[in-house]
Amino acid sequence: MAADKIDTIVSLSKRRGFVYPCSEIYGGQKAAWDYGPLGVEMKENLKRQWWRYMVTAREDVVGLDSSVILAPEVWVASGHVATFSDPLTECTSCHKRYRADHLEEAYEEKHGKPPVNGLADLNCPNCGNKGTFTEPKQFSGLLSTHLGPTQDSGSVAYLRPETAQGIFTNFGQVLQTSRKKPPFGIAQMGKSFRNEITPGNFIFRTREFEQMEMEFFVKPGEDEEWQQYWMDQRWNWYTDLGMREENMRWYEHPKEKLSHYSKRTADIEYRFRFGGSEWGELEGVANRTDYDLKAHSEASGTDLRYHDQEAQERWTPYVIEPAAGVGRAMLAFLLDAYVEDEAPNAKGVMEKRTVMRLDPRLAPVKVAVLPLSRNAQLSPKAKGLAADLRKNWNIEFDDAGAIGRRYRRQDEIGTPFCVTVDFDTLDDNAVTVRERDTMKQERVSLDQIQAYLGARLLGC
Amino acid sequence: MAADKIDTIVSLSKRRGFVYPCSEIYGGQKAAWDYGPLGVEMKENLKRQWWRYMVTAREDVVGLDSSVILAPEVWVASGHVATFSDPLTECTSCHKRYRADHLEEAYEEKHGKPPVNGLADLNCPNCGNKGTFTEPKQFSGLLSTHLGPTQDSGSVAYLRPETAQGIFTNFGQVLQTSRKKPPFGIAQMGKSFRNEITPGNFIFRTREFEQMEMEFFVKPGEDEEWQQYWMDQRWNWYTDLGMREENMRWYEHPKEKLSHYSKRTADIEYRFRFGGSEWGELEGVANRTDYDLKAHSEASGTDLRYHDQEAQERWTPYVIEPAAGVGRAMLAFLLDAYVEDEAPNAKGVMEKRTVMRLDPRLAPVKVAVLPLSRNAQLSPKAKGLAADLRKNWNIEFDDAGAIGRRYRRQDEIGTPFCVTVDFDTLDDNAVTVRERDTMKQERVSLDQIQAYLGARLLGC
Repeated sequence: MAADKIDTIVSLSKRRGFVYPCSEIYGGQKAAWDYGPLGVEMKENLKRQWWRYMVTAREDVVGLDSSVILAPEVWVASGHVATFSDPLTECTSCHKRYRADHLEEAYEEKHGKPPVNGLADLNCPNCGNKGTFTEPKQFSGLLSTHLGPTQDSGSVAYLRPETAQGIFTNFGQVLQTSRKKPPFGIAQMGKSFRNEITPGNFIFRTREFEQMEMEFFVKPGEDEEWQQYWMDQRWNWYTDLGMREENMRWYEHPKEKLSHYSKRTADIEYRFRFGGSEWGELEGVANRTDYDLKAHSEASGTDLRYHDQEAQERWTPYVIEPAAGVGRAMLAFLLDAYVEDEAPNAKGVMEKRTVMRLDPRLAPVKVAVLPLSRNAQLSPKAKGLAADLRKNWNIEFDDAGAIGRRYRRQDEIGTPFCVTVDFDTLDDNAVTVRERDTMKQERVSLDQIQAYLGARLLGC
Repeated sequence: MAADKIDTIVSLSKRRGFVYPCSEIYGGQKAAWDYGPLGVEMKENLKRQWWRYMVTAREDVVGLDSSVILAPEVWVASGHVATFSDPLTECTSCHKRYRADHLEEAYEEKHGKPPVNGLADLNCPNCGNKGTFTEPKQFSGLLSTHLGPTQDSGSVAYLRPETAQGIFTNFGQVLQTSRKKPPFGIAQMGKSFRNEITPGNFIFRTREFEQMEMEFFVKPGEDEEWQQYWMDQRWNWYTDLGMREENMRWYEHPKEKLSHYSKRTADIEYRFRFGGSEWGELEGVANRTDYDLKAHSEASGTDLRYHDQEAQERWTPYVIEPAAGVGRAMLAFLLDAYVEDEAPNAKGVMEKRTVMRLDPRLAPVKVAVLPLSRNAQLSPKAKGLAADLRKNWNIEFDDAGAIGRRYRRQDEIGTPFCVTVDFDTLDDNAVTVRERDTMKQERVSLDQIQAYLGARLLGC
């Protein structure tokens, strides 16, 4: 089961409306995915939890939403135009293209050491031939477009490959208008675009993806302890939302492989169990030093130093950046929540059950309302209840098929509570509430149902 | 005041952190804007209100989040590659470029009739010369990019100019997995991109913009009444969130100017009072007929008809589309909420006050916590209260300057409630709550403060 769990999730996602292949009626758009009715709810829940934890629940972080298309000078100053590229190699036998560094990393993970002769030692993962790779060429990861009526170099613009630079370029304006002082942070969620050579693994690596990034500005010298602080915070965010620690680990980037701006980067990895590799990056927490602010100060001629009035000195803040991917987080939470256990069928015989043990805050549907049968008395009662609950939460109403089958449908999408309206309801004005994981049932008065569910859906 | 209200809003937006000019340190990116700490909160509030009203509070609408970059075939089938273009003209005297249709509309609005000889009758708005415009040329509004390592026609991809097509291409998948039947809708919020010739008027028309679109699928023949239904719903959404009806009107598109897919389109217009024109489109409600689903059925070879099992017939649904722009809605709500009245200063003398009368659901900050002075006893008490309230709402804490000045700061950004912690608080364990619009003050016990504010911030 473990090895093909990812396939199970892909299939369930499509079948139940979490994630569809993009443009499927046209044969699909390579490595692009659309979020369906359940997927969009879960994704928004995830983003809202991040925003609350990182922004509104804190007094030292504010939000921002900058443009996807910034002035082209931004990407020159940040170093992206010159250095944001990957080594591209092609197998001369089957003409499939790869990232050379990914091929070497896969070899190292398998053999415990890097290939002695580099690419020459590797077999093509597609056709199996050895020694067929071309010398790697650098290939820009920036997607570009043209603005305005002419398509010349003067009209070129880039789609951002990270949301971070929109934060750095607005640093001075935010500092002034928010009246915050370091240590403080600016957070942003939004789409970024990268011309990936080898996108894939479902929603793990796509050319168009959503980021949740926060840049935390601190006094130089205080950067190392703040990095540790944010590493702890970010780990806790995932575990507090139910992710199991046995599927998580830290990966420390070796000094020689750090990005040009980084003093230290540590990734939270999740046990995705992709075909080629057990672990994959979930989120990186990087110490970007004062690289970006200094680069933009110099290139733009705007002084982006912080003026510390008490100490009467000016300094360029260091930056700690926890940067998460929405798609990756969503995939990890889906994999982590997916469980197969047993539940009794109508005859009391135990049968296999699929249950998505999502934290209620992440679950796309909070409550399902299920009239025991389609009936002139039960249906309106159940519909009225569903309408009431809909004022507070995302609700499903389902009156099709046997009740056991309807429970299974809700278990599979992670709905924490099913509320059944039955014939007794007409007498006792109460309903049966079934909890997803324990399958325990409790009789709750309709007068109390909002309060009952509200207490169990706190923070949703 | 009325005429330059828009300038007042632009200036306030920048000064207080609602909206900044994008990439300003590099001289700005034309007609692009970034949302600051207050702007991003208000924008998210607006989107959440739309989502609740249009999706989760209803049983007949589900959500979706499709990609910005769809398969290129989508834009061929939809007609965008062939026909999504605007007539571009250039003044041969000053070389400024315009949309020919916009120039003619501005003339018509001013003179009550269209120009007899077309562009030849018009003066250039920039240099004032007459008869200097070139014959208009069609100019594509699609922004394109290239995916993958090569930049040839096989790798071209488009940035979506509307979110709607992502809904149509997923129609079959959603129909199957959500188990909905017409009449039902699919809603989506997200970024779209258009290569506008003349972007401008602050966040009203930008090349990169956010849409809130819903496609409602109905049986042919029921389309006209559903269009009226959604026109009413959408009008009510704005007025329920406090927009004043005297600043709103309906504009019915003349038959001969309808888009190629539309049977009828009606716009809600708002009195933006831009330099050139009093009214501007806020939202369009279009009857897109079965144009899009039929086009995609034919181009993709996928049958996108609905199979009505009861009537034993197959038909292609008609589509009613309420399509709103996030930036436009935000600008309209800001303009509508901006009021100048009077309030007493510290000496009891009435002085001018700027107040943003935003509905609490839209206000970026719900409550400001203000200790009367910085003090070893008041500050921790006030900070503790702010921390408590932050669990539920976006809160500001401000202890800098005279209390009257701090009230003014909150009034100007539309904060519905200010809570003052004073020396009496240490004795009576109560605080003073001041309401923004009436400026009335009430003493509320700290035990009751969450409930007091909760009742007044319902739906936030």
